[in-house]
Amino acid sequence: MILGHESAGVIASVGSAVRHLKVGDRVAVEPGASCRVCELCKSGQYELCPYMAFAATPPYDGTLQRYYKVPADLAYALPEGLTLEEGAMMEPLSVAVHSVYKLGSLRACESVIVFGCGPVGLLCMAVAKASGASRIIGVDIVSSRLDFAKQYAATDIFLPPTRKEGETNLEYSQRSGKELKQKLNISDRGKDAIDLVVDASGAEVSIQTALYAIKTGGRIIQVGFGKPDVTIDIGMLMTKEVKYQGSFRYGPGDYPLAISLVAQGRVDLKPLITHRFTFENAKVAFEATKTGKSEDGKGVIKAIISGPDTSVDDL
Amino acid sequence: MILGHESAGVIASVGSAVRHLKVGDRVAVEPGASCRVCELCKSGQYELCPYMAFAATPPYDGTLQRYYKVPADLAYALPEGLTLEEGAMMEPLSVAVHSVYKLGSLRACESVIVFGCGPVGLLCMAVAKASGASRIIGVDIVSSRLDFAKQYAATDIFLPPTRKEGETNLEYSQRSGKELKQKLNISDRGKDAIDLVVDASGAEVSIQTALYAIKTGGRIIQVGFGKPDVTIDIGMLMTKEVKYQGSFRYGPGDYPLAISLVAQGRVDLKPLITHRFTFENAKVAFEATKTGKSEDGKGVIKAIISGPDTSVDDL
Amino acid sequence: MILGHESAGVIASVGSAVRHLKVGDRVAVEPGASCRVCELCKSGQYELCPYMAFAATPPYDGTLQRYYKVPADLAYALPEGLTLEEGAMMEPLSVAVHSVYKLGSLRACESVIVFGCGPVGLLCMAVAKASGASRIIGVDIVSSRLDFAKQYAATDIFLPPTRKEGETNLEYSQRSGKELKQKLNISDRGKDAIDLVVDASGAEVSIQTALYAIKTGGRIIQVGFGKPDVTIDIGMLMTKEVKYQGSFRYGPGDYPLAISLVAQGRVDLKPLITHRFTFENAKVAFEATKTGKSEDGKGVIKAIISGPDTSVDDL
Amino acid sequence: MILGHESAGVIASVGSAVRHLKVGDRVAVEPGASCRVCELCKSGQYELCPYMAFAATPPYDGTLQRYYKVPADLAYALPEGLTLEEGAMMEPLSVAVHSVYKLGSLRACESVIVFGCGPVGLLCMAVAKASGASRIIGVDIVSSRLDFAKQYAATDIFLPPTRKEGETNLEYSQRSGKELKQKLNISDRGKDAIDLVVDASGAEVSIQTALYAIKTGGRIIQVGFGKPDVTIDIGMLMTKEVKYQGSFRYGPGDYPLAISLVAQGRVDLKPLITHRFTFENAKVAFEATKTGKSEDGKGVIKAIISGPDTSVDDL
Repeated sequence: MILGHESAGVIASVGSAVRHLKVGDRVAVEPGASCRVCELCKSGQYELCPYMAFAATPPYDGTLQRYYKVPADLAYALPEGLTLEEGAMMEPLSVAVHSVYKLGSLRACESVIVFGCGPVGLLCMAVAKASGASRIIGVDIVSSRLDFAKQYAATDIFLPPTRKEGETNLEYSQRSGKELKQKLNISDRGKDAIDLVVDASGAEVSIQTALYAIKTGGRIIQVGFGKPDVTIDIGMLMTKEVKYQGSFRYGPGDYPLAISLVAQGRVDLKPLITHRFTFENAKVAFEATKTGKSEDGKGVIKAIISGPDTSVDDL
Repeated sequence: MILGHESAGVIASVGSAVRHLKVGDRVAVEPGASCRVCELCKSGQYELCPYMAFAATPPYDGTLQRYYKVPADLAYALPEGLTLEEGAMMEPLSVAVHSVYKLGSLRACESVIVFGCGPVGLLCMAVAKASGASRIIGVDIVSSRLDFAKQYAATDIFLPPTRKEGETNLEYSQRSGKELKQKLNISDRGKDAIDLVVDASGAEVSIQTALYAIKTGGRIIQVGFGKPDVTIDIGMLMTKEVKYQGSFRYGPGDYPLAISLVAQGRVDLKPLITHRFTFENAKVAFEATKTGKSEDGKGVIKAIISGPDTSVDDL
Repeated sequence: MILGHESAGVIASVGSAVRHLKVGDRVAVEPGASCRVCELCKSGQYELCPYMAFAATPPYDGTLQRYYKVPADLAYALPEGLTLEEGAMMEPLSVAVHSVYKLGSLRACESVIVFGCGPVGLLCMAVAKASGASRIIGVDIVSSRLDFAKQYAATDIFLPPTRKEGETNLEYSQRSGKELKQKLNISDRGKDAIDLVVDASGAEVSIQTALYAIKTGGRIIQVGFGKPDVTIDIGMLMTKEVKYQGSFRYGPGDYPLAISLVAQGRVDLKPLITHRFTFENAKVAFEATKTGKSEDGKGVIKAIISGPDTSVDDL
Repeated sequence: MILGHESAGVIASVGSAVRHLKVGDRVAVEPGASCRVCELCKSGQYELCPYMAFAATPPYDGTLQRYYKVPADLAYALPEGLTLEEGAMMEPLSVAVHSVYKLGSLRACESVIVFGCGPVGLLCMAVAKASGASRIIGVDIVSSRLDFAKQYAATDIFLPPTRKEGETNLEYSQRSGKELKQKLNISDRGKDAIDLVVDASGAEVSIQTALYAIKTGGRIIQVGFGKPDVTIDIGMLMTKEVKYQGSFRYGPGDYPLAISLVAQGRVDLKPLITHRFTFENAKVAFEATKTGKSEDGKGVIKAIISGPDTSVDDL
């Protein structure tokens, strides 16, 4: 199967009814084509369409090809000044838009914690910043990632304490949550409270800590996925009436908003693009992304693979 | 400490500014007085007020007294035809209103599953019925409770399969969920899908089954509480973008709606009142409620304790 | 141009990819095909699609033809027991579902006033009843229509007072509104207040009266259309923070819910079908509907036209 | 009757139960004390409380006094760095927060038009800017006001065309609306569309223009009040399914957010404070505010009156 679902490209051909695009246009490609006719598509939640044809998800091939066919409305013309690299990055940015802006309903002056400072977590913080959040707290167990987050979009960062021997996940997360609240002066309500937590880590300990840290009546969005079975404290969920919702890919309006955020200069994608590879070296790119390490010694956040016959300088 | 928080009574005295009540009026008593001035009280979520003075919750005494002092707006005059017994039952009914109608947002023609057929579960089904739900499925592991549910408010009932030896909770709930969906012809979307699950059991297996049974994009309300730590499948939460929210007591409008539902004949509380005790026998009442068994051999759903100097016939 | 947009029929042919329908199936036909790809279609508001191809709306022909081509997802199989006549009536019923249930968000135990007791107003009351409304007040200036409304779905009816000579619309509506509130014991808040007004009349006086009658914080839905320019009291809109929204046709889920309401027996369409005409007599049918009078002396609510080569007895 | 409802002061005395304030604290004063116990207060809409005791609204005296008694939770301590003048301005700023942020639900990257560039209109634009709006269009018939708006918070401004002789309000507003859309490249949907209109003018022509300019599916908030009876085009309201809501004063959370916006530097109130008067010259201040003109020749936006025995330099 052909891989690839975070992509941008140049229009090689358009159907006869297409009006908004022409050959040569540079576009970001939304990689999932929904059925358009099921109740979920019609009611504004196409991300949940059971008939979704999603790039690189069997039986559908991905976008790492010379030519890729996409419904015209899923090819978004890139505004002047935006690069194809940024176009490819609209995919993870749309995930962040979906989690933070749409499902998380983050509004200006609200406070948010993002667990996990990988690409999705960083982009969630960037969307939070672009949405006017007052406080954006990044949490990760790798301090170099926290440094990056702080300089990129976080207003505060938190490195959880080291786990003690024999400590269960729940004991550890409770201790970590307490420390988080004390160190960063977080309260359960009022102006020092956390309105929204986005878990982009998928780690059980993060989710448990989220339930401690979120304000009474607050919201938690689950966008990171690790192991499926996670133990949570439903007592916390109940006494605070927390709203805990899962987030899946992106839906109506997410790609357009992602592009708009970058075009307006509200989100800067460039710092996340750390490496570039030719089409021929795609395998090396995947390897580097997987391990987070590359030959140049610099940590890999996002690696871009150029198309066949394209120099990385053309992007 | 004095117990009691599900109560009704007769007004013995009113403050000078009270206009809507007079001595002798029969009232249902909302047992929690919130602070009125914190942000949660003001924003319409007084159930979450951190300064709540709640009957029978330390340091506050409960209502099992000859006289009980309550802010005037928390004493609701019972419409003609409603008994004091029904008045006392407004408390658990308000819990159901809060879970099903307010937080669960159940609307006419939607389908709901209620896990747990104890008093709160039964009242959740009653509220679902009163709200015009198309389908109300009761689930319990005690078949006599299911029989009662079916005759009281459920349109369908489901007795989970027996657990196999060595089966984990997740394995068991997955098998049980599959059987539930097959037997009752439940689909993941469309008219045979479940819009809302209310868990009134607090059992881990129920919550896990809820995540299997709920429709794509559906809602789960947690109102039952057993042990705090519950393992859930966050993969389900994410791929279906389920909204999972905890429910705590009752808030603005819940008591009035509960009273209105009974006054309009939409909810019948009488079948749930199975036993009556004098004030002197209060201890026996608590014992019977705890075990679910009474000397008369009939299962105890709700036992009413009359006030001092009141015969049970006066209620 | 060919007229007709409230229709049902029998499938004569299906496309090769259609799975849910086969030749001979009886279907209700949703008469507007939206573009599926614009932001409004995608975000769950296809009723607002600017590219809508709507039957009998230029340049699109209507459904009064032997054969009519419709996208498969807009042909809804009629459940057993539902007639083709009822199928045709799903169109106005969907208008009512859209206004009362979806935009109006009417919930069980709420109170509603419907201005105008023509077909759409009657169906709005029917949807309100099916949604569990506590009180459904029908208002019309024709008392025979009120009688029908009362027997069909209204719990209360109101005949506005006769207009005095020289009275302006605003003076008249204020007087009428006062009388309405007094006669029917309507208050500005609490259990005797009106949560929702649906104006299915389009008359200026109705809209003005609606603003007087609606509760503080209430909702008004505009579905009837007369003359475009209507004078309203924005002081009322402001001091009560009324939400006033226009309703246009029907959108995602409205047709399915309409069919479900009839299939479940919650809405009875038959009393509204007062007359039947053959295809050849279509012109007479339109005439009778327009004047509300027919040769048989009975008032016309809805007149059904059978297809070519179909006897009216086949419906 | 004593006037005054936009005020700040210094605590002279506190009740024995007050914990968050002490003598000498500088506070902004929310001038309306609601009843705390009616359904509207409890459900989070205290601005609509029918028992509201509002400063300078008969029979209640206003705040232009040496001492003013206020419930402790309505006296908000001013963060360090904020002046008493800014404290007094929290009142109109809260009106803007209520209209734009709470009822208008303005989110980052949305576009807004504000009709009327007086104090409330200017503050609405300031809140829009603080909320991360992409585009903020100020409309007024006085070009000097537009200039101020542009420099203060608007991204664009629009001076409506001169009215032609004999033109009705509807004809004029239609022409003005067309010009507005053309000149500022406003479309009915998509990224160039207007998500929210706030009318802070109360002028019929503004409201009519708003209905032309708002996007399909958009929102209009009415906060300005001129004459009560306004003629609107309900055809526009219907075919676009516009949501038109009135805004009244401010409710839960509005004052705290207003203070927070200024404390964070997101809103700058100082440019609006154009004049200062002593207590003795209060009458001159009212006169200047009414006419918009003062002896110094500078236009009056907001005039501050200092307390008795206070120099204007002490503010």
